[in-house]
Amino acid sequence: MATKYKLTYFNGRGRAEAIRWLLVYMDEEFEDVRIDSEDWLKMKQTTPFGQLPLLEEDGKPICQSLAIVRYLAKKAGLAGNNDWEDLQLDIVSDTLVDLRTPAGAFVRETNEDLKKAKKETYIKETLPFYMKKLDSIVGENGGYLANKKLSWVDFVFTATLVEFLNQHLGIPDVTANYPHLHALTEKVRAIPQIKTWIENRPKTTF
Amino acid sequence: MATKYKLTYFNGRGRAEAIRWLLVYMDEEFEDVRIDSEDWLKMKQTTPFGQLPLLEEDGKPICQSLAIVRYLAKKAGLAGNNDWEDLQLDIVSDTLVDLRTPAGAFVRETNEDLKKAKKETYIKETLPFYMKKLDSIVGENGGYLANKKLSWVDFVFTATLVEFLNQHLGIPDVTANYPHLHALTEKVRAIPQIKTWIENRPKTTF
Repeated sequence: MATKYKLTYFNGRGRAEAIRWLLVYMDEEFEDVRIDSEDWLKMKQTTPFGQLPLLEEDGKPICQSLAIVRYLAKKAGLAGNNDWEDLQLDIVSDTLVDLRTPAGAFVRETNEDLKKAKKETYIKETLPFYMKKLDSIVGENGGYLANKKLSWVDFVFTATLVEFLNQHLGIPDVTANYPHLHALTEKVRAIPQIKTWIENRPKTTF
Repeated sequence: MATKYKLTYFNGRGRAEAIRWLLVYMDEEFEDVRIDSEDWLKMKQTTPFGQLPLLEEDGKPICQSLAIVRYLAKKAGLAGNNDWEDLQLDIVSDTLVDLRTPAGAFVRETNEDLKKAKKETYIKETLPFYMKKLDSIVGENGGYLANKKLSWVDFVFTATLVEFLNQHLGIPDVTANYPHLHALTEKVRAIPQIKTWIENRPKTTF
């Protein structure tokens, strides 16, 4: 019997989108549940750590978006082929977290002056520092973020991080000045199942 | 020929300590290089992402502390036995990151009033929310954070997170009110190689 997947998240791409891309890449049908804030208030207490996304695999709940991605990636053939390759993926993934975390800090900042200052430092320092390094890595890895082949970190970068940064920096494409990274995102979005998904997914604000 | 390990970090426990515990647990001799800020200024540009710790395995540099821990854990027999068990470890690890990240935010905050406010919210809300959940998890997992057996997340919790929180909250033991978590840290510290390491490691301020 086929595995049954049910993914619950808000009505947006956010931290769920890389999971959705993995599921469509695996040709898995899944229930794509998108809840509103009223549903969330009722549901929050029932989740393991008060967070979404939540994936249910044959009814078993799984939380933490990156943990879910790592788990599905093994089934999708998008993990490493050995411990050294998995190490390279983990290094890139931790680095994507380091690139995202300070962006989250200016997004959540409620004081407008501080928000502006944090965002400026992010745009002038953090972002170019990491993007330049990541662009070189892709240049040296045959067009991928690690191991010279497509992997789950390419999905996380394209589906989650780039969309998050574009939205919160208010720019059309954060990879515009980074040719290797830009080509990578184009390549991932051109994977037939992903292309179809993007064309047909709900249009949402985040 | 035995694998050669060289670990470079500042003169402290910090994000390197879980790596050191894994190496001593594996009975691996390693060069425990501790640099000062002057050395660091010279070295920073040569590291992959301008960060320490940096582990060299037979001369090959490996960065990102959690990636290093995951990699060594497989050699140490402290990873999962299958994909489902590894998923449980990843869920806990991501949750430890969620517990640590907002603590990092008040530690780095330079405005004293904001620092105080952030620290207070952390102590009143974030910390008890996660510690209570983690304590229950350990209670249900035979005294461990996942899979009813010792794993790398128990090392990360005890060697890195608890020490970080004790220091920055200025308290002797953040697990004091959480009996299952407290017992877990005692158990990890009582592993013979870890016990010997703690007794003999350099006494440092962090």
